[in-house]
Amino acid sequence: MRPSGRKTDQMRKVSFERNVSKHAEGSCLVKFGDTHVLCTASLEDKTPPWLRNTGKGWVTAEYGMLPRATGERMKREAASGKQGGRTLEIQRLIGRSLRAVVDLEALGERQISIDCDVLQADGGTRTASITGAWLALHDCLKWMEARNMVKVERVLKDHVAAISCGIFAAQPVIDLDYLEDSAAETDANFVMTGAGGIVEIQGTAEGKPFSQDEFLTLLDLARNGIASLVDLQKQALG
Amino acid sequence: MRPSGRKTDQMRKVSFERNVSKHAEGSCLVKFGDTHVLCTASLEDKTPPWLRNTGKGWVTAEYGMLPRATGERMKREAASGKQGGRTLEIQRLIGRSLRAVVDLEALGERQISIDCDVLQADGGTRTASITGAWLALHDCLKWMEARNMVKVERVLKDHVAAISCGIFAAQPVIDLDYLEDSAAETDANFVMTGAGGIVEIQGTAEGKPFSQDEFLTLLDLARNGIASLVDLQKQALG
Amino acid sequence: MRPSGRKTDQMRKVSFERNVSKHAEGSCLVKFGDTHVLCTASLEDKTPPWLRNTGKGWVTAEYGMLPRATGERMKREAASGKQGGRTLEIQRLIGRSLRAVVDLEALGERQISIDCDVLQADGGTRTASITGAWLALHDCLKWMEARNMVKVERVLKDHVAAISCGIFAAQPVIDLDYLEDSAAETDANFVMTGAGGIVEIQGTAEGKPFSQDEFLTLLDLARNGIASLVDLQKQALG
Amino acid sequence: MRPSGRKTDQMRKVSFERNVSKHAEGSCLVKFGDTHVLCTASLEDKTPPWLRNTGKGWVTAEYGMLPRATGERMKREAASGKQGGRTLEIQRLIGRSLRAVVDLEALGERQISIDCDVLQADGGTRTASITGAWLALHDCLKWMEARNMVKVERVLKDHVAAISCGIFAAQPVIDLDYLEDSAAETDANFVMTGAGGIVEIQGTAEGKPFSQDEFLTLLDLARNGIASLVDLQKQALG
Amino acid sequence: MRPSGRKTDQMRKVSFERNVSKHAEGSCLVKFGDTHVLCTASLEDKTPPWLRNTGKGWVTAEYGMLPRATGERMKREAASGKQGGRTLEIQRLIGRSLRAVVDLEALGERQISIDCDVLQADGGTRTASITGAWLALHDCLKWMEARNMVKVERVLKDHVAAISCGIFAAQPVIDLDYLEDSAAETDANFVMTGAGGIVEIQGTAEGKPFSQDEFLTLLDLARNGIASLVDLQKQALG
Amino acid sequence: MRPSGRKTDQMRKVSFERNVSKHAEGSCLVKFGDTHVLCTASLEDKTPPWLRNTGKGWVTAEYGMLPRATGERMKREAASGKQGGRTLEIQRLIGRSLRAVVDLEALGERQISIDCDVLQADGGTRTASITGAWLALHDCLKWMEARNMVKVERVLKDHVAAISCGIFAAQPVIDLDYLEDSAAETDANFVMTGAGGIVEIQGTAEGKPFSQDEFLTLLDLARNGIASLVDLQKQALG
Repeated sequence: MRPSGRKTDQMRKVSFERNVSKHAEGSCLVKFGDTHVLCTASLEDKTPPWLRNTGKGWVTAEYGMLPRATGERMKREAASGKQGGRTLEIQRLIGRSLRAVVDLEALGERQISIDCDVLQADGGTRTASITGAWLALHDCLKWMEARNMVKVERVLKDHVAAISCGIFAAQPVIDLDYLEDSAAETDANFVMTGAGGIVEIQGTAEGKPFSQDEFLTLLDLARNGIASLVDLQKQALG
Repeated sequence: MRPSGRKTDQMRKVSFERNVSKHAEGSCLVKFGDTHVLCTASLEDKTPPWLRNTGKGWVTAEYGMLPRATGERMKREAASGKQGGRTLEIQRLIGRSLRAVVDLEALGERQISIDCDVLQADGGTRTASITGAWLALHDCLKWMEARNMVKVERVLKDHVAAISCGIFAAQPVIDLDYLEDSAAETDANFVMTGAGGIVEIQGTAEGKPFSQDEFLTLLDLARNGIASLVDLQKQALG
Repeated sequence: MRPSGRKTDQMRKVSFERNVSKHAEGSCLVKFGDTHVLCTASLEDKTPPWLRNTGKGWVTAEYGMLPRATGERMKREAASGKQGGRTLEIQRLIGRSLRAVVDLEALGERQISIDCDVLQADGGTRTASITGAWLALHDCLKWMEARNMVKVERVLKDHVAAISCGIFAAQPVIDLDYLEDSAAETDANFVMTGAGGIVEIQGTAEGKPFSQDEFLTLLDLARNGIASLVDLQKQALG
Repeated sequence: MRPSGRKTDQMRKVSFERNVSKHAEGSCLVKFGDTHVLCTASLEDKTPPWLRNTGKGWVTAEYGMLPRATGERMKREAASGKQGGRTLEIQRLIGRSLRAVVDLEALGERQISIDCDVLQADGGTRTASITGAWLALHDCLKWMEARNMVKVERVLKDHVAAISCGIFAAQPVIDLDYLEDSAAETDANFVMTGAGGIVEIQGTAEGKPFSQDEFLTLLDLARNGIASLVDLQKQALG
Repeated sequence: MRPSGRKTDQMRKVSFERNVSKHAEGSCLVKFGDTHVLCTASLEDKTPPWLRNTGKGWVTAEYGMLPRATGERMKREAASGKQGGRTLEIQRLIGRSLRAVVDLEALGERQISIDCDVLQADGGTRTASITGAWLALHDCLKWMEARNMVKVERVLKDHVAAISCGIFAAQPVIDLDYLEDSAAETDANFVMTGAGGIVEIQGTAEGKPFSQDEFLTLLDLARNGIASLVDLQKQALG
Repeated sequence: MRPSGRKTDQMRKVSFERNVSKHAEGSCLVKFGDTHVLCTASLEDKTPPWLRNTGKGWVTAEYGMLPRATGERMKREAASGKQGGRTLEIQRLIGRSLRAVVDLEALGERQISIDCDVLQADGGTRTASITGAWLALHDCLKWMEARNMVKVERVLKDHVAAISCGIFAAQPVIDLDYLEDSAAETDANFVMTGAGGIVEIQGTAEGKPFSQDEFLTLLDLARNGIASLVDLQKQALG
């Protein structure tokens, strides 16, 4: 019934490739099926002005898509002179999601900038970004631990991962690809921790409004999917 | 326990003043306590390029805050040369929420632009905007009906209203003001129709992750609050 | 003969509502007939770089129109990414006019930012802005006086108010509304102090050039009108 | 008494050099003492959208200063990404002033763009620009007349010229140079036609407010100065 | 003597991976050592305005670097709101180089947009981009040929490839990596066709000026290197 | 055979007028035939951030064209809100070329900003800019020497000048004017020092690729031309 032939609760093949960047302190190429996102974590000296002399650090994120990551070439945001609303919304979400599992005091007065660049898009780029970014962030903290700057387990309190769910052809399904996403009646994104705490919920009716029961079904699908993603993150850490 | 002395399920005083603009086809000054938003609905000839010759119309929204709507003066977005991520995120939400109850084919190939400008902010500006914008949109459609352009009941399928809920001082509360909002552990916005269908859910853990039970409590609070808002919209229509 | 039925030397009904903003140190909602401008005065810590360590302060102004303040919806300046020439010209005029009656040394090394936002426009928005902004500035200084920061009478040397005059249908008239303004042959704005000193004169031939005599008639109309506005400011102060 | 040793009613040496551009349809290098402005008039096919199919044309102006036209190098506006408020204000004034003596219907549905670029500044750049731009516009119309596109005398109804006056060291003086301008108590710009009609008056109190009598003295100075400038324009036309 | 241990005329390992993008009509991941560039070719309906109704097509290019492609994270151009001078210079070069071997009339009134996005940088990103972009362009034309839109051999007249050479530690060397590039006295980029014709030469003295003899040595190195690159392109085509 | 009737190795009439700016520390109006560029050199207090506390100075350049410097009026870059790629490319080239003959340590921690503004364009604006800018820079250093800030001969190590060459109608020619430039098959720019060292070479095939022999012929033409330009610079210095 799903265009891809997947079962309603079946995610696409997910893979993580760590240390893909020669330069970045942490990096991960994450793939959810044909959605491929390159995540890098960069340790930076500067902190945002409002944190100066507070002893606290910051984790922030930027998101971008290569112009031909999509079916039709999109205008390059650098050329059009500004980041669109969707881009800003997604990068704010990534930053919030990661900060939910970071102890900013334990990080100390430093900033880690996460860049999530979509090399190829097939639905679910924001949830893949969050899930891969966690690994890049982890490896950046490992790099810092090796230099006695932080203790990873004090800074990084838990895993965080994310998945999209939606109602497609009247069926609740997990991990929508582009074909499903563009036809879904309801579209929701969930971000949760390894312990199962909810970090962020976003549900949108694309067509007709949805009911609380439908939403709870999506939440259940997401909970299972995110648990699997956290397991995969753990496997990737070896 | 709440700074305002309100009960956990008690909203602020809500009022709607219709026809506040000499020029706009529909307008409403909405107040949720000290949060005041001026909503206007403007009928425009043009439609977005992607709808040309489809017979469908469009409803879009823009959001802004006056620089001193807030406790500290903010930089004027027109002067800084771009709308911030928060602004873009909110105006996308307002537009989606209204379109969820509009039959775009029945509207015909026209655009209605909703402007929500916050004259004074005290928390909950996006939910007040959506709730007031529905009335401005309704009155714009009435204006069009009087000119035989549309039938209101064919275009506007239902009410839509929105409220914020959150966990403040470990208690689930409704309709957070600024003091509560800035200290809340979890912050959620809900958009629902008159029939109780869910249009949009956004929940964010500001501090520690929240549980499914906590989230369902917020959803219940919201459901009741939105039902009251819809009643108030009906009273405002007389 | 005037579309509004007013006599040539008759201004529209003018009203001032003080303390309309919960947050601003000074505020005033000024109405010249259907032209409504919300003026706020914000005390800011920062001063412009060129005044640092001079002991002098600064008063500056920003001006904006809500997109549907006008008969046809205008593009939001924040969305188009820059303030237009008319906006910049008006806000420079407001700032100059207010500074003409302020002793910047007595103010001390602080900046007061005046925001004039047009909620509804029907001609004469710049002159209404100046006249209302003076009250917002006054109340901001009162707020500072209550905190022993300044003495109002040392900083604010006089009243300042403004009015437009023009030649409409070959007749010199005062306080043009939009219908008159768009058909006027000559359009002039005058800013004067309570003592009758001239702060700013701007006269423009929209159609054929005007004579010195015509201009002097406009100046007389303006002198009387501004005297009335200063009286109304005094009444508003109680 | 004036830094330059000039009498109060004595303008600087004014010269016009026509046909200084190989490419432009009309051009003039105007010098008011050390203020040098290159004015070009370009005939363009396009008209602004609001004039399409009206049979009317348009005359518009742009103004710029080379970065080192001034005593201290200013940031290049092209590099800072926008034209400042002063630039926009001046170019709007130049355009309005020229249009006051142009019959836009006789011009036909065409646009003439005037560029006034200040090569060297020493006060009075806007008034020199207007005065020189009139010659560039005249020569552009001559070029068009030679191609049977228009009749110059039907399009260009009169001369237009401009001069600054001000109160310097308590004395009304004409044609202020930079030293005078930066110390003037009152600063005014006048634009008049060859027939003596007033096109634009701008008077600003830089320090204390000015009186009506003072203003009339400045207006008299300007009237005489502009009459001389018109004579010089006529001589330049030969 | 070279930091990498390479001989003066030894290029880094070069590889091409074709068809790396699910969406693009042509794509190639090119690696010159640790410099990795993702090149996509997108067929677009639109042509630039100046080519409308000429029967000719266009090939254009855009270039970007991921923020952490480099040793230190660079500001994202989309976030800073404009493309820097270096970016614009490089993408103009890529476009010119490709057009040198394309028959724009045989292409027909279509545009092919090449995007070169640097995933990882280690010197020579512009020359790697050109060399990889040629393959993406080739495969896009193949895609079009399969749809009877063009004949590849009529549109694509020859190979084009590029290499950097420079004088490092007083020695002429080929294919500088970042360490060499940042210390080179002279830096030159060469673009040539498969037939050995020169398309573009850029030579810059970073320290002291260079002599004609030195330049000719670099040109010889480049000629050999580019011949090898063209061989590798042919192998990649199979 | 050349449209201008010049011989293949004949440059246009070149002239330099020094001290054309009342304000700039150094200035030169350079003319290569109908190409006229005003070059000013401005001594500035500030240095770029990356040079702070290094003891080194900086020489930078900005380039612009007046809108009607060209045959058709171009959009003013300040009005369009950004400098185009061609502008950025040229001003980077001018800056690099001048720095090649400047000892930045001997300059001390100061910046000299060169502005090259094209008053009239007829091909070769970038090479005329470099050649004239050298004189402006020289005179700025002389101005500094007169104030005991630097020794000219320690800072300015040599002359620098530039010329364009190209293949026009199958003939290698020097100093192309606009007619030749727009029809040239190959276009090259050369920057050399007084001692004959090469600072910059840029060669571009506009149509078919060029051969090494063709390129060497252009290089010979350039060498002779630049030697003449250096002689003319020396004459201009008297």
